[in-house]
Amino acid sequence: MIQLKNLLYLKDLRKDEINQLLDLSDHYLNSKSSHEFENLLKNQSIASLFFEPSTRTSASFQVAAKRLGAETIIIDEKKSSATKGETVLDTIRNLEAMGVRAFIIRTGDKDLFRPLINDVGPDTHIISAGESSISHPTQGLLDLLTIRQAKGAFEDLKVIIMGDISHSRVARSLVEGLDIMNTRNITLISPEEFKPEMSFFPSASYEEDPNKGLSDADVIVTLRVQKERIESSESNLSLEQYSDEYQLSEDKLELCKPDAIVMHPGPINRGIEISDRVADGKQSVILKQVENGVAMRMAVLTQILN
Amino acid sequence: MIQLKNLLYLKDLRKDEINQLLDLSDHYLNSKSSHEFENLLKNQSIASLFFEPSTRTSASFQVAAKRLGAETIIIDEKKSSATKGETVLDTIRNLEAMGVRAFIIRTGDKDLFRPLINDVGPDTHIISAGESSISHPTQGLLDLLTIRQAKGAFEDLKVIIMGDISHSRVARSLVEGLDIMNTRNITLISPEEFKPEMSFFPSASYEEDPNKGLSDADVIVTLRVQKERIESSESNLSLEQYSDEYQLSEDKLELCKPDAIVMHPGPINRGIEISDRVADGKQSVILKQVENGVAMRMAVLTQILN
Amino acid sequence: MIQLKNLLYLKDLRKDEINQLLDLSDHYLNSKSSHEFENLLKNQSIASLFFEPSTRTSASFQVAAKRLGAETIIIDEKKSSATKGETVLDTIRNLEAMGVRAFIIRTGDKDLFRPLINDVGPDTHIISAGESSISHPTQGLLDLLTIRQAKGAFEDLKVIIMGDISHSRVARSLVEGLDIMNTRNITLISPEEFKPEMSFFPSASYEEDPNKGLSDADVIVTLRVQKERIESSESNLSLEQYSDEYQLSEDKLELCKPDAIVMHPGPINRGIEISDRVADGKQSVILKQVENGVAMRMAVLTQILN
Repeated sequence: MIQLKNLLYLKDLRKDEINQLLDLSDHYLNSKSSHEFENLLKNQSIASLFFEPSTRTSASFQVAAKRLGAETIIIDEKKSSATKGETVLDTIRNLEAMGVRAFIIRTGDKDLFRPLINDVGPDTHIISAGESSISHPTQGLLDLLTIRQAKGAFEDLKVIIMGDISHSRVARSLVEGLDIMNTRNITLISPEEFKPEMSFFPSASYEEDPNKGLSDADVIVTLRVQKERIESSESNLSLEQYSDEYQLSEDKLELCKPDAIVMHPGPINRGIEISDRVADGKQSVILKQVENGVAMRMAVLTQILN
Repeated sequence: MIQLKNLLYLKDLRKDEINQLLDLSDHYLNSKSSHEFENLLKNQSIASLFFEPSTRTSASFQVAAKRLGAETIIIDEKKSSATKGETVLDTIRNLEAMGVRAFIIRTGDKDLFRPLINDVGPDTHIISAGESSISHPTQGLLDLLTIRQAKGAFEDLKVIIMGDISHSRVARSLVEGLDIMNTRNITLISPEEFKPEMSFFPSASYEEDPNKGLSDADVIVTLRVQKERIESSESNLSLEQYSDEYQLSEDKLELCKPDAIVMHPGPINRGIEISDRVADGKQSVILKQVENGVAMRMAVLTQILN
Repeated sequence: MIQLKNLLYLKDLRKDEINQLLDLSDHYLNSKSSHEFENLLKNQSIASLFFEPSTRTSASFQVAAKRLGAETIIIDEKKSSATKGETVLDTIRNLEAMGVRAFIIRTGDKDLFRPLINDVGPDTHIISAGESSISHPTQGLLDLLTIRQAKGAFEDLKVIIMGDISHSRVARSLVEGLDIMNTRNITLISPEEFKPEMSFFPSASYEEDPNKGLSDADVIVTLRVQKERIESSESNLSLEQYSDEYQLSEDKLELCKPDAIVMHPGPINRGIEISDRVADGKQSVILKQVENGVAMRMAVLTQILN
């Protein structure tokens, strides 16, 4: 078994490491009984530090940790010593001294993680639960798991990511992962306003027109678009225009392969980036992604802590 | 054993279902050892979603769930995806996908529960922890338990509910429950300002004058009155006037039967709707209600999840 | 074994009681396996009520309670019934009725604890997690533990406390504890602005000049200084001046004995009351204090609840 120390970026992983995480997640999903793993992390302490709001990722990690028997400490950053001027590193060193061995951290700060992993102790593990618009590794891994379950392999797929790519850590991590798994046909679709810096996505191509980009797609990952970002965009793109052109509707879904799967990292803005019918339709694997998220986070915690 | 799917309104229950819940609560209260039930809900996941503030109901459900060995997830709605525009249904579907089987929800929204119970999965359970001024079913059940413990039966009792009836979900649920248990003598006492729509209380009568209404009462349920509501009432009712006329004082308590019991759902506004001496006096069963609340919520969770 | 009912002030303890708590903490720290104590407080309910923000003390108590198998309930005072006008005593009585046996309370209110301990039930325990500028007993105890581990005994030590003494509950509790343990040489160092009412520290002397006070010290406890307090002080003390004169730097540390230990209750204001090099240097036992905090809180909970 591989042993991971931290999990910050999918690009740091090798293909065999990702495959092991996918296999272990499937194993947890297929287990008949929870007794098998309910004490795997008994007496291990895990702390959650979320500096950005989160329901699903935070709850998913909590559930994963509890199913493995770990002790979890949730630090509410609004009440925390951060309000007294302590550095994040000091907070973490204090929790280390209390016996905490893993830290699940979400932050908007691009300069937190890299120095942090050098400053913590040799037995301390840092797991990113989302970093600015840069990385969301467990989301990328659960997306890979969902794709492999539906499609069996990664090599010959056409994968679309559509929406606000420029602000999306989900897109970044997924493309890093697909790259390692040898998916060569990745297209990012967005209006000009949300076109990303393409050097961050060396293996992907960009297409402004959904009608061209979506044809023959196997996998469509729709991304959340913040209303405020559309309305404040310089080019006066309206919410209505955005929905007309970029919402994954039933019409647009018909441009894809008939067995294409529809994904979304959530939370969904229904009627904006995706229609109700597609979100709740039979090609949608959105809730399967959520189920996979718990299994994948159990796999990550196990590989890191066990 | 009966099997409940959801718990939203006491009027949806039959008399035998209520009796089973009362019996099971008494059983939990009388158990010599917690070992008997500490694993009843092992590996079951329960989520709390409180969209209105709560200490006691939230803590009571938490304690009940933990005593049965369930895994509890507390969603802090201020940090949740609700702030990102996700619907409550989407939040619940996500938690369902993570394996959560029961949702304990408090809401001020009158239109949440009815559609919700049709939209969730067949194995998902919804438990109301308070709905606007409409329903508070576990409070109603713990009130019935407290009355049965003190009085043995419901049929021949005179029950008074006094205070701000018009905004009280506690009054609504208790009267629904008493109606099913065949209590025929129920009087609601309040100033004109807080008189409820009586069609919601078909089995009860209304009385503005406490001196008339309280005579020969067996059970007096005092209700919290918000200072702001008194002070903003159109008829210029003052806080002082309210306390003079409607506070359950020792004098007023003497109008009731000598063995009458005094109840209050909490939190208490001491010196407004109830005097210190009565709240802490020997006829008060207010803290017994709180103790019963944990046992009743254990009974509800068991009947729904086991 | 001694049995404590509450823990509010170190001055209420005897020397043998403190020694037992220190011995038990060391025992927990040296235990090879957590199995020995993981069920000591099984089925005991403990509630945390923090009316002031806290990361480390709150987390430390949580970890301690979990390691002993206790059930913990965290009351978020912002969402609590306090917002509905209920008294703290009523909140506690309600939690007592739910089966909670110990309350860990932090408050800025100097008039809360004394009446409270008389009003709660005979089986209910109150543990202070910090009271205004008056008392922080578990901090005092973990400081004594850290000193004993490094120095073996208390009698012949010279102990310095330096910083904002006048607002420090940490200083108060530590001096109470050192007094009981027969440390006779205690010096408080601060600028005139932060000189405390010396009647609260009958066994200690005061010195304004660090260069005089620090000589031959065995133990230096640095205290956090709030920037706002310095900047708003009447005598126009500047932050720069404060750091120049009162920061524990490597230069100042050389005035002390070569084997002196450096302590700080945290959270640290790096570069203000202590330099980075000293805080992270080899004489610093600051993180050892944090580790000791969990063990000491386990000892306190065990002595009170077991």
